[in-house]
Parts: sequence; structure tokens; C-alpha cells
Amino acid sequence: MNQKSNPNLRIPGPVPIPEEILDLVGGQMINHRGPEYAEMLHKMTDNLKSVFFTKNDAYFITASGTGAMESAIANTIEENDNVLSIIIGVFGERFAEIAESYGGNVTRLNYDLGKAADLDDIRSNIRSINNLKAVIFTHNESSTGVTNKLEEICQIIHEESEALILVDAVSSAGGIPILVDEWGIDVVATASQKSWVAPPGIAMITVSKKAWERSKKIKTPKYYFDFQQYEDYLQIGQPPFTPSLSVMYALDFSLEKMLNESMIKVFKRHKDIADYTRKKAKEFNLEILPDEDVASNTVTSIKLPKNIDGVKFLSEVKNKFNVILGGGQKSLTGKIFRIGHMGWVEKEEIDESLIASNTIIRQITK
Amino acid sequence: MNQKSNPNLRIPGPVPIPEEILDLVGGQMINHRGPEYAEMLHKMTDNLKSVFFTKNDAYFITASGTGAMESAIANTIEENDNVLSIIIGVFGERFAEIAESYGGNVTRLNYDLGKAADLDDIRSNIRSINNLKAVIFTHNESSTGVTNKLEEICQIIHEESEALILVDAVSSAGGIPILVDEWGIDVVATASQKSWVAPPGIAMITVSKKAWERSKKIKTPKYYFDFQQYEDYLQIGQPPFTPSLSVMYALDFSLEKMLNESMIKVFKRHKDIADYTRKKAKEFNLEILPDEDVASNTVTSIKLPKNIDGVKFLSEVKNKFNVILGGGQKSLTGKIFRIGHMGWVEKEEIDESLIASNTIIRQITK
Repeated sequence: MNQKSNPNLRIPGPVPIPEEILDLVGGQMINHRGPEYAEMLHKMTDNLKSVFFTKNDAYFITASGTGAMESAIANTIEENDNVLSIIIGVFGERFAEIAESYGGNVTRLNYDLGKAADLDDIRSNIRSINNLKAVIFTHNESSTGVTNKLEEICQIIHEESEALILVDAVSSAGGIPILVDEWGIDVVATASQKSWVAPPGIAMITVSKKAWERSKKIKTPKYYFDFQQYEDYLQIGQPPFTPSLSVMYALDFSLEKMLNESMIKVFKRHKDIADYTRKKAKEFNLEILPDEDVASNTVTSIKLPKNIDGVKFLSEVKNKFNVILGGGQKSLTGKIFRIGHMGWVEKEEIDESLIASNTIIRQITK
Repeated sequence: MNQKSNPNLRIPGPVPIPEEILDLVGGQMINHRGPEYAEMLHKMTDNLKSVFFTKNDAYFITASGTGAMESAIANTIEENDNVLSIIIGVFGERFAEIAESYGGNVTRLNYDLGKAADLDDIRSNIRSINNLKAVIFTHNESSTGVTNKLEEICQIIHEESEALILVDAVSSAGGIPILVDEWGIDVVATASQKSWVAPPGIAMITVSKKAWERSKKIKTPKYYFDFQQYEDYLQIGQPPFTPSLSVMYALDFSLEKMLNESMIKVFKRHKDIADYTRKKAKEFNLEILPDEDVASNTVTSIKLPKNIDGVKFLSEVKNKFNVILGGGQKSLTGKIFRIGHMGWVEKEEIDESLIASNTIIRQITK
């Protein structure tokens, strides 16, 4: 573990954390069942709702983002429920697997890696499934750098069905707009180590009245991820289970900072640095995997020229430039690299990443 | 949130953390899928096994201790499995509830609060249940300050059945001896914020071959807590899901520190400070809830004199002495207070806690 050298960590989360926030992370423990924690929890809960423009319930769970995704499923899906799973990459597939592990009868709508979901496909698939209980999908697929058209997808689901809308927003929330109430999203799942600029360890969810109603009708096994646990304890200003205090301290600060900046500006800031990344990449003649109109504002996927050893590329970029990039996952391994630009990112960090990438690509292909 | 005043935090976890460890907690993020993390993970896994004197598998899960308890259940219990649940307090009841939520047919063996489980009862209960699949219980019940006789209980279970032994060791492990292999424990569950002297956020489990065999035969819904996820990724030096890096940094240090000190000395240190706490409490004429031979070496429960308002007592101790004690839980609310002495505890901190308690008791009863 080499914490001191501070490389330019440009994976799509965990994001590098500014010193002022790391100081909070290193804060002393407090009583998680005492008044200080209660005050922090209530304030954070209100702030989380504000970030999502929602009056729905919102909870903090000590887990990774996958825990939040599982919570969405475990509270709303029971055996043999018909579920439509829209999959544009690794995390969409993971969401489908979770639904299946809970007995869901999952229809997979798969897309080529680098593509977003097609709206007409979604409409016709919803129409073809009787008694559809939920549509589940990834908002921002960090494995490919593609952002699905969340507002439009939600609109279609509402037009065509009564299905619950469960959204994996792990790598989008806090960086890309999500209007939970206006778009009618039942459960949003996200995690602290992404645009929130906190260490990993806290997952967050919002829960609609409709998701609550469903949760009370089903008997799916669950305990740690049970919505009701979080709601019951929130009423007395407590977490149901001992929370990751260190991460909560950071998240408390980040939530407040984001709202003070205003979410409009936070989203604009993410769009600006993403635009900059794409523009600069093109100047280096690097090819971005997805089409421009669905390219993510939190992570950019760039194609590696053929015949380049992806493992060697990543290690050379690290060893020679102290830049840590994301590689491709599953079938994209060795075919792309990824630059994360969530949270507070400077143009210089993007420049450095692209100069490093371009230099190593040229060196290897020589 | 008042992190700076640093009160004498004497709840039974989270424990106060020394500055040198807090510095690690505040360390910068690293790539959790890179070689540095892999090295740390492998070392920590080996160290965790050493702490438990086991060759069983061992995993780190980003969750609270309840997550580890749920993992124990979700991987080994399926619907209608006969489970014997030995309950001596709040956390024993929680373990039973988790097993029931997963469809277990749970027989509850309940004891009065402040008592340990009776060995003859356990034997006769095991004999009376056909096809018993698992015995689940709390090693150290932090809600009452009682430690069950783990070795003896395990011996009886082995003599009388083939049942799996699942142990909630959240508040004992790392402070009170647990010889996983010698005593034949199938799953041990614990959490970072206790004797390990790290912040909350990481749960730990050990998994026996017998537990693995069982896990492969059942179809209980699970994903985040699935043993197999942790094993598959450990093979490539990775966590299945983004881990709480900040807590892992601390735990890495703590595990190494404990082994360098030697577990015998760690356990002795916990016994010594517990003996000191009990001796001093008696000098103040304070009555300890459990019998001496089952009193916990990680937390001491002390009876509050009748007619004392427990809420007022705790707030006065905090406001006048800056000491934060644990209160009673559920039916013990207002009837006891608890002093945590896990991890690195100085006699002065115990003195301060008892002087504060005694002074406020006298003031209130005046």
C-alpha cells in the first residue's frame, strides 16, 4: 500500500479525495446512537433528497453500490416476478443477476457494448411482457462510458406499464441529472466513492411510495438491506446497524458542498470536464467508444488501437506517468481504457492522463 | 458533529481510535483492482486467519457486523431448515430474526438477561430437534456484558449433532479467544469497530469446508453476501465489490499490530482491563449484572440503582464528565449502563468512567 505517492487516480471510482475531506475521514469515532449522529443523519437525509430533487424516502447503507442495487431488488421482487432488464454493459448484467438470484423471471434486453438502450425497443419489450413488475437498468454504464436516456426511458415505462422503475445510478448520481420525482423513479441506488467525492463504504437509496407498497406485499428474504430497518431507526435518529462513520463524515461535507454550489452547477461542471476530455482525446486522434450523444459525463471510454497489449498499456501509463486508468472489463478487456472524471477534476489531470495514454500508445505501437 | 472535543467514548463499539490509525483512515484512495490492493488483501486475509487460529477461508465484507451475520445465514440456511438459536440478549435475538427471515424453522432457547446459556439445556435441545441444520448464537452478548462458554458449547454441538455452528463473534473476536479450527466453528462473524480498533465499515467472516459444502447445496437468494463472490475475486487479488478502503487501511495495521503483540497477549490485555473494571466497580459498590464467571472481557454491564432515570444518568455523565457510556437496550433500558473496554484501553479511562458514573448516581439519588 503506497498511500503517500498520490498518483493521478483516474479510474471511474473510487475518486481521489481532497485533503480537507480526508481530514474529516480521519475524524475520531462518535456514538452512532447519540444526538450528534442523529443531527448529522437527519441533515444528510434531507440533503440527499435535495440532490435527487425528491420527497421520497432516502437512506444510507453501509455497503458498496451493489448493496444498494440488491436492496432495490430484495425489497420489491419476489419469486417469478416478471422483470425487464435493460443491459448495456457489465453493471446492467450484474443488476439482472441480482434479480435472478432473488427468483425474478428476467427478460434481458441486451445491447452491443458502447451503445445506449434504444427507446423503441424498450417500448415494444414492455408491451410484450404480461404482468411486468419492474424494469431495471443502469443509468450510466461505467464499464463502457455510456449514459442511458433516463428521462425518456422512465417516460416510456410510465406510458406503457405500471412496473416499478429501479435504477442503478451508482456512477451517475451526483454528477448527471436525476430528477427522481419528476421522472417517477421508484428506487435509485448509488454509492459514496463516485461523484460524491467520499471514500467507498456508504451506499444510498431513494424509495418511492409505490416501492414501499410493493415491499409490504412480498416475503423475499432480507434483513440488512430491508428498507423497513432503515426507516424504523431513522424515526429515532439512528442507523439500524453500526454505520461507516468515517465515510459518513466525508459524505456529510460533500452533500452540503454540492448543494451550496447548486446541483445545476455540479452537473454543468461534470459536463464541462467530460466535453473537455472528449475534445482533447480527439485532438490526440484517440477514438471514443460510444457515440457523442450518449457519451458519459462521468467516465470516458477510449478505444485502444488493435495489437496493443492492454495490460502492458495500463502498467506503462502507471509506471512512467503515475497515472492510473481503468481498463476494459469482461469482453472489452484490452480493447478500451477508461478515464474517470467524477467529482472535483482539473483540466490538468485530464491533460496528464491523455498525454500519458497517447505517449504509451505510440511507444508500444512503434 | 463535534469530532474535536474527543470525549472518553466508552460504548461497546465503535471504539476510540489512536491518532496513528486515524492517519491511515484518512489516507488517499487507491485502485481497488490494482496490485497494491491485491497485496494488502492477501496479507490481511492471512493475518485474519492467524488471529482466528484457522486454515478456513476468511473474507472482508464492506458492511456492519449484522451483514456478516446475514452472510453466515444466507449461505447455509434454506427454507424450513431446523435451526437452534441460543439467545442471551438483543444480538442473539437478531441472529434468530435473520435466520427466520431466510425461512429457517427456528427453535429459540432463551435466557434471562445477564445470564449465559446453560450447557445441559443446549444438549437436551439439540437432542430434541430432528435433522438440526445449524446452531446459531452470540459468543459475547454486548447488550448484557455476558460471554457464552464458546468452547464448551461447540463441544456439545459436535457430540450431539452434525449441525453447522454459526457464531456471532462481533463483540468478542480479537479480544476474547476463538480457536476456530480446534473448536470446529463453521462460520465466525465479526466487525471492524470492536476489538480490532478500526472504524466501523468492514465485517469479517471465516468459512469452514462444511459451511462451503452446505452453501453449494442451497438456493437461498443472495448476492452481496454470497461467499462465492468473495472467494472468486480473492483468487485474482480483488474484492468483488468496491471495498471501504479507509477502514481496510486501519484494519490492515491493526491486524498486523495484534499479531506482532501475539494473540495470547492481546487476550490477556483484554482480560486484565476487564478484571480491573470489575474490581473498581465493586470498590464503588456498583453491582455488575452478570455472574463473575461469565462476565465479558470486552464490555461490563453495571446495574443502575432503582429509581434512577437512565436517560438522565447517561446525559449527565456525558455533560459533566465528557464520558460516553452505553445504555441498556430493549427491556434493560434504564436498568443498566455499559462500559466498553475493547481495543487499547487505559486504566485511567476506566477510572474516569466509574468516577463519573458513581458521582452522577449519587447526585441523582440525593
